[in-house]
Amino acid sequence: MRIQTMEELSPDYNYLLKIAYDGTRYSGWQVQKNASSIQQLIEEALDIIIKEKVRLIGSGRTDAGVHALEQIANFKSTHELPISRIHNSLNAILPKDIRILEMQSAPQAFHAQHSAIGKIYHYHITLDRYQSPFQRLYAYHAHEILDIPLLAEGANYFIGTHDFSAFANSAKEGCAAYDPVRTLKRLDLVREPGGIRLEFEADGFLYKMVRNIVGTLFEIAQSKRLPCDIPNIFHSRDRRLAGKAAPAHGLFLVKVHY
Amino acid sequence: MRIQTMEELSPDYNYLLKIAYDGTRYSGWQVQKNASSIQQLIEEALDIIIKEKVRLIGSGRTDAGVHALEQIANFKSTHELPISRIHNSLNAILPKDIRILEMQSAPQAFHAQHSAIGKIYHYHITLDRYQSPFQRLYAYHAHEILDIPLLAEGANYFIGTHDFSAFANSAKEGCAAYDPVRTLKRLDLVREPGGIRLEFEADGFLYKMVRNIVGTLFEIAQSKRLPCDIPNIFHSRDRRLAGKAAPAHGLFLVKVHY
Repeated sequence: MRIQTMEELSPDYNYLLKIAYDGTRYSGWQVQKNASSIQQLIEEALDIIIKEKVRLIGSGRTDAGVHALEQIANFKSTHELPISRIHNSLNAILPKDIRILEMQSAPQAFHAQHSAIGKIYHYHITLDRYQSPFQRLYAYHAHEILDIPLLAEGANYFIGTHDFSAFANSAKEGCAAYDPVRTLKRLDLVREPGGIRLEFEADGFLYKMVRNIVGTLFEIAQSKRLPCDIPNIFHSRDRRLAGKAAPAHGLFLVKVHY
Repeated sequence: MRIQTMEELSPDYNYLLKIAYDGTRYSGWQVQKNASSIQQLIEEALDIIIKEKVRLIGSGRTDAGVHALEQIANFKSTHELPISRIHNSLNAILPKDIRILEMQSAPQAFHAQHSAIGKIYHYHITLDRYQSPFQRLYAYHAHEILDIPLLAEGANYFIGTHDFSAFANSAKEGCAAYDPVRTLKRLDLVREPGGIRLEFEADGFLYKMVRNIVGTLFEIAQSKRLPCDIPNIFHSRDRRLAGKAAPAHGLFLVKVHY
């Protein structure tokens, strides 16, 4: 008797999903005990439709309250699936705050997390004294007066290739293979109705990196620390020296590059 | 003993509120039994702050699920109020889906409903096959295929001065003083991400008039009736000949003119 290799046993069909979600009601992307996650709801919907327990791999996790205009995920199935029908069924089963925008077949080697070469996140900040009811779940309302030129000056210090350890809460820090170096290509400050948004584009992001950077920029914009302190925080690699994480609900995953 | 006239007893200070609200959670603007209304919540907040039971007069009622970017209301108080402090306190007490954007003193004769000389409403329609999670509460998702040029052709029939009885659900129809003639100055179709919006501007709107017009336009856009049928519907003054009211959550009160 010939024993099958893992390769032969592994599922053959790989599918990519482009997903948008309003993170307000969820515990985040990742499956967690006793809490409803986006990953879990999609896995359960697939189980109902294709009668197969698949593992949905996201490009990365988003925390509770964080939104996605375009999250990418993939899963493997032992069967070739009728894409258009599965796509429709997924949106029929899923709640309306999670939408599968696209479904397509992907090359066998495609892995939503490992194949990603870059990401864009936006962080929205309301500066108006009173926040529009329509922004309350989608932008952080800054109650303090923020010095925007100072915030922009601080933002410039983050652009480039750095060891971002001081700006990451990482469960993986103990790992030998853990690499905290990332290249932030772009950190743009854009005016929008009622406030501003910060646009982050990098080859990858460490856990809570965007929110920790935004939190540090808030402190700079309130003159609680100086823009020129940032190189020292980078150098320290000490999370405790950076600012408090900014609230989750202002953050959107906007794009994943492959 | 001299008896005070009603005029002398009436309150002296008149205040105007500019209000934005997300109508999702509410039974509408108007106070109703056993349901939470926006008017009621603001009246209760004022009662807590100024310790006076005032009557808040809106520019008009909006139904359950209808939103407002800018509703106008006024109330009279027997006391001169510290405006800035009351304004802050109102927003501190009210839930975040209701915001008082402005508060100012108004002339004694100002009446939010009777002084209004015009209004703007927008109705948002998602045409994309799958609706963005961020539009689910703020735009109607048209599941049918809509013929937009046909919809635009139908829209043109509504512009001008008409007896809009056939497009109104009115509790006041029995009243002798009831005047169903309105002038629709503008009904523009504007493309926006994911779909379109219809912009209505008139000297006033009858009850459910916008939603009934939109519902009729949906039927035209699905070729269930012809644009040239509209004059006959106007002429009939019969509500049953017009289309079904479009869902509430696509509708926004955008501006009240005085």
